[in-house]
Amino acid sequence: MASLQDISVSAAINILSAIAFLVAFAILRLQPINDRVYFPKWYLKGIRGSPTRSGGFASTFVNLDFRTYIRFLSWMPAALRMPEPELIDHAGLDSAAYIRIYLLGLKIFVPITFLAFAVLVPVNWTGGTLETIKDVTFSNIDKLSISNVPSGSQRFWAHLVMAYVFTFWTFYILYREYKIMTNKRLQFLASENRRPDQFTVLVRNVPPDPDESVSEHVEHFFCVNHPDYYLTHQVVYNANKLAKLVEKKKSLQNWYIYYQNKYERNPSMKPTTKTGFCGLWGTRVDAIDYYAAEIEKLTEEEQAERERVISDPKAIIPAAFVSFKSRWGAAVCAQTQQTSNPTIWLTQWAPEPRDVYWDNLAIPYVELTIRRLLMAVALFFLTFFFMIPIAFVQSLANIEGIEKVLPFLKPLIERKGVKSLIQGFLPGIALKIFLILLPTILMTMSKIEGFASLSSLETRSAGKYHLFVLVNVFLGSIITGTALQQLKSFLDQAPTEIPKTVGVSIPMKATFFITYIMVDGWAGIAAEILRLVPLVMFHLKNTFLVKTEKDREQAMDPGCLGFATSEPRIQLYFLLGFVYSVVTPVLLPFIIVFFALAYMVFRHQVINVYDQKYESGAAFWPDVQRRLIIGMVISQLLLMGLMSTKGAKSSTPLLIVLPILTIWFHLFCKGRFESAFVKFPLQDAMVKDTLERATEPNLNLKAYLHDAYVHPVFRGGELEKPAVIDEEENNPLVPTKRMSRRSSKYGSDVSSEAGN
Amino acid sequence: MASLQDISVSAAINILSAIAFLVAFAILRLQPINDRVYFPKWYLKGIRGSPTRSGGFASTFVNLDFRTYIRFLSWMPAALRMPEPELIDHAGLDSAAYIRIYLLGLKIFVPITFLAFAVLVPVNWTGGTLETIKDVTFSNIDKLSISNVPSGSQRFWAHLVMAYVFTFWTFYILYREYKIMTNKRLQFLASENRRPDQFTVLVRNVPPDPDESVSEHVEHFFCVNHPDYYLTHQVVYNANKLAKLVEKKKSLQNWYIYYQNKYERNPSMKPTTKTGFCGLWGTRVDAIDYYAAEIEKLTEEEQAERERVISDPKAIIPAAFVSFKSRWGAAVCAQTQQTSNPTIWLTQWAPEPRDVYWDNLAIPYVELTIRRLLMAVALFFLTFFFMIPIAFVQSLANIEGIEKVLPFLKPLIERKGVKSLIQGFLPGIALKIFLILLPTILMTMSKIEGFASLSSLETRSAGKYHLFVLVNVFLGSIITGTALQQLKSFLDQAPTEIPKTVGVSIPMKATFFITYIMVDGWAGIAAEILRLVPLVMFHLKNTFLVKTEKDREQAMDPGCLGFATSEPRIQLYFLLGFVYSVVTPVLLPFIIVFFALAYMVFRHQVINVYDQKYESGAAFWPDVQRRLIIGMVISQLLLMGLMSTKGAKSSTPLLIVLPILTIWFHLFCKGRFESAFVKFPLQDAMVKDTLERATEPNLNLKAYLHDAYVHPVFRGGELEKPAVIDEEENNPLVPTKRMSRRSSKYGSDVSSEAGN
Repeated sequence: MASLQDISVSAAINILSAIAFLVAFAILRLQPINDRVYFPKWYLKGIRGSPTRSGGFASTFVNLDFRTYIRFLSWMPAALRMPEPELIDHAGLDSAAYIRIYLLGLKIFVPITFLAFAVLVPVNWTGGTLETIKDVTFSNIDKLSISNVPSGSQRFWAHLVMAYVFTFWTFYILYREYKIMTNKRLQFLASENRRPDQFTVLVRNVPPDPDESVSEHVEHFFCVNHPDYYLTHQVVYNANKLAKLVEKKKSLQNWYIYYQNKYERNPSMKPTTKTGFCGLWGTRVDAIDYYAAEIEKLTEEEQAERERVISDPKAIIPAAFVSFKSRWGAAVCAQTQQTSNPTIWLTQWAPEPRDVYWDNLAIPYVELTIRRLLMAVALFFLTFFFMIPIAFVQSLANIEGIEKVLPFLKPLIERKGVKSLIQGFLPGIALKIFLILLPTILMTMSKIEGFASLSSLETRSAGKYHLFVLVNVFLGSIITGTALQQLKSFLDQAPTEIPKTVGVSIPMKATFFITYIMVDGWAGIAAEILRLVPLVMFHLKNTFLVKTEKDREQAMDPGCLGFATSEPRIQLYFLLGFVYSVVTPVLLPFIIVFFALAYMVFRHQVINVYDQKYESGAAFWPDVQRRLIIGMVISQLLLMGLMSTKGAKSSTPLLIVLPILTIWFHLFCKGRFESAFVKFPLQDAMVKDTLERATEPNLNLKAYLHDAYVHPVFRGGELEKPAVIDEEENNPLVPTKRMSRRSSKYGSDVSSEAGN
Repeated sequence: MASLQDISVSAAINILSAIAFLVAFAILRLQPINDRVYFPKWYLKGIRGSPTRSGGFASTFVNLDFRTYIRFLSWMPAALRMPEPELIDHAGLDSAAYIRIYLLGLKIFVPITFLAFAVLVPVNWTGGTLETIKDVTFSNIDKLSISNVPSGSQRFWAHLVMAYVFTFWTFYILYREYKIMTNKRLQFLASENRRPDQFTVLVRNVPPDPDESVSEHVEHFFCVNHPDYYLTHQVVYNANKLAKLVEKKKSLQNWYIYYQNKYERNPSMKPTTKTGFCGLWGTRVDAIDYYAAEIEKLTEEEQAERERVISDPKAIIPAAFVSFKSRWGAAVCAQTQQTSNPTIWLTQWAPEPRDVYWDNLAIPYVELTIRRLLMAVALFFLTFFFMIPIAFVQSLANIEGIEKVLPFLKPLIERKGVKSLIQGFLPGIALKIFLILLPTILMTMSKIEGFASLSSLETRSAGKYHLFVLVNVFLGSIITGTALQQLKSFLDQAPTEIPKTVGVSIPMKATFFITYIMVDGWAGIAAEILRLVPLVMFHLKNTFLVKTEKDREQAMDPGCLGFATSEPRIQLYFLLGFVYSVVTPVLLPFIIVFFALAYMVFRHQVINVYDQKYESGAAFWPDVQRRLIIGMVISQLLLMGLMSTKGAKSSTPLLIVLPILTIWFHLFCKGRFESAFVKFPLQDAMVKDTLERATEPNLNLKAYLHDAYVHPVFRGGELEKPAVIDEEENNPLVPTKRMSRRSSKYGSDVSSEAGN
């Protein structure tokens, strides 16, 4: 077990690396040349045209105003300054809700920490068990934990009462937060401008008809069954091949531009390339001519494919976006069943146009159920067999293991500093590396499951990732063992034994998790704000590809929140907080620092950097709540197991009440709030319809919806910014302060010239 | 363990008692005096006015035509003769679907039995393990079971393959049956006549409004949010007290008539009664005057209460039946969410008027969730603590137990016949008695849970009863032990150990379950057809209360199917069939006899006796399917446990596939068919609306719906036969053969005179 000294070394390393990241960020962000890396959101919004410094030529690349360096943490108050309504207006409700998860962590754990330090730490510290046992080495951290309380002591009443207090406090905060989020979502939806998805329903599994085309069939069906509300519809083309061609052409164009730039800078040497794979072998040819010819060829191919898709009836897939005359009509169609066969004419709210995942729209029902079965089995194997490498690396990461495998390293390792480093740092890093590989696999699995929108894909991936983190990071770190040993030991143990086995090891693993929080949490968050990969990528692109202002805009990679990965990781911190709040309260301050730091960093990123791909209106909140409840139940069961091994068996009946209450609380909240995130109530639809009819009686809705749901390749590659969003930007319902600062939307070029 | 001889004795007893019941039934049903007990359905339908025999005075009471006695089983072919469409038309889809459960049992188990006897019985019989072990006594039945196969034998492949074959056969039949039931339900709903519940939605949790009454609030809300479809609504009065008064008055009237009859028959003696409790003490008064005065008093009280309910705004509960102009409008309202707060304005399909459970309409959301939590906890305790008495009685029921407790009985018990009787009969009877107490408790619990219709109450009770039967009858009989020992042993065992523990005891319990099937199944079903309690009650009423033909009609107690109790009991037989099909196939014929007998008996009862209280259109079928799947999964897990103890560990991976496939099959079927039982598709609603608009353009729907959903006490006590049903009877969509035999609906008195 790591001693207090190991922890201190690890803490020092991590705090230093975190500070290094922050300082690096503070310096880099002040350089005008990096402005587009650290403030892309403002560029995308058209508010910022260029770095606002004035000065000579050098100052367009390097910030020479040394006064600004002194206030290198000035971004922190700046990040906190923007009020939440403005934040929602600026970055969307998804981002604002995501940040609130960190705030929720602070709300839950700050009072719990104070209470735990006031009550439980003195109780544990004066327990005096560990001092009486001579054989066991223990650190001061263990003296602060429940391990120090003698078996069967009356002191456990304190822990029991605190478990109740913490649970009810968490209930209160969770209920309040769910209520606030529900109101925010309803307000957000109510204040939203007209959007195509409010009028549109996605219809899947249109049955084949021998006499009619898909388009005619859809029109007839909805004319008959929604006669008063049906307006128009948009068939979906299978344009996956076309999209690939467009993608390929784009890449070729980049190379073309690259060689042209090279030639312009050095006209004496005509650039050449090889025709083989990646330009590595094959005959040497003139690069510019070669790529020009290739692009020409691909353009023709693309044109042919485009015509084929539009004219070939087989390219139309049995799905359609059906639009209605009013939001009320769409709400009705989305929430009802159309025919007696529930596997055809499936209706659901259409996702936002940019949220649609086009590849998955044409999967028939039977195939869908088989795909889900296969993915469930695959997830099981992935979750339980992935343990092998983790356990292997972790077994290497203990000193004795390394000394055994690589005996010649012994003199090096035995040095005090190195030993602490290895023990404190390596297990965390090993886990971290494995976790980086995972999200892509999980996202692919979700795609195979056949969900039709990016938001649902992210939600599903998050669920999978959460299971993975629970089993492999949390349980896998507590009871280390090779591969399937754990699964097997769980299956062979009695259900009442499992909480005991896990519970007993919990106090011993506190130091490990403290290290983990510092490596993954503190340093990881600090690295997030530095944006090292986008920084390097931007400068590479800027050097080789950028010619016009528009190119520079495209070279920006603002990124987005990555809900699928980061939310389950936050859940791990919540879980650790719940588990250790009663057992080893000394872990709590580390979690609080994590939540506070993450809150500030992500608030800054959301304001200045991230550009969300879609806006779901915080539709993920029920998942967040559910996973928090899962964390609470796990912590309560483990506490029960731990207590029963500590000779406090009489506490079990009292503790079993907690998970039952928690599950009931979950069901209560679910019934009370969840439908606001799933359904769209008719009353709200009617209010918006009535309002619109009064203010814009002559609106031509059909023209408005005409090509809202066209596959992006048919829109001339305007993938990033469809017209819908522009309109919203032009007519914000809530006038903000930004309005005054704001230049004309399309005037970024103009203002950039003016600025220089 | 009971020997083959014990089984034979038990079989003889049960077959004899079953035959005795059947003969008694055959004789009693032919007596004209019992005609209204055994054919009440035809009287209620108005088709049968009186017993159709002709002859002297005596022949109105006793059947003197001895030829009819010879064909004493003639009811069996008669019960099978009515074709299913006519049966649905005659008795409703609920009854027809219920009967199909027994038919489903035959369809599943008849082929399985043939296959098991052809393959598994020879394999088991020649296994020869039991003969080599000298210490164990075994019966011939055990030689036919899997116990006779030596451990680790290659013969287990036969069982493994058969498990797969049986599973897939069951899948096939279940899928086909679900499909047939779905079609039948859709046809039934499509062919139904106009009914108020097609146009009506039950709205619960109407929020209080300071300025408006409930009625105004409902009207305004739906006028705004469903402007094109809202027609009218009916508020709900809290008439529970009034209903009690009406009930009490009815009972007093019965006594009044009883004493009047007594006086008429014997005018010399004026009947007297005492005013105290049940006429047992108090001052002696003239009975007729006393009851006349009491009735007068109650009538005034009832009148006052009736006026109070109608005029007092506090007597209106925050719920209403809202009717729409079209089925489409109602279907939309029932399936959508009305406001952003999902705990107010809750809409659901209105149950049929006679299906409404009026007491539960006014429970607010928070109270509802608390009630459900409490009932879930109560169900847990009921299920697990109810074991104490069963285990106690069963421990008495083994010979050694009785001899220990009551040693003086030893000489009596040790006699061969008595011993067989006790071992074969008693455990089954003990269980049976306990089960009789249960349904009322479970129904009360469901009522506390707050469901708003009788059909949902029955479904919920059935779910609870199924859990109880599973834990206490099935598991409780397999692993006997006192009280909570079982629960404790389950909690202390590894999850992989439980199937082993249970699985091992399964072959040994085959004889017990064979006995149980004969006692509970064979004899129980035969007793069902005899209707002993209604027979006695009818003759008592007939003697003391009946004066007019209408009284005699009310004295009939046709009863109904009692889904809540009988369906879970059928599920037990399915479970036994699934479990023993591979292990001890010799049990299967007993189950087949049960299903065949029950099918005939219940078909007879449905045709001639039962009068269903409501018609849900087989809405319970998804529950039946789910419980069948639960039975299959249990049997597969137990087989896995059994096989792994028999040295066939390598079979586990092959057997684990079965439950996964079964669960997937369940999800597949659920997605494919379930919504036909839960939702009402818009297409079907539109078809019916269009048809109706074409055929009856001048229909005054408002008048039609005017008092459809009035609390029954306001309808002048017409509780039994609301107007709705009459109309359906008068205009059947499908003309049947019955039409020709049918006399005028209200002409039963006339035809009875003509018949005599």
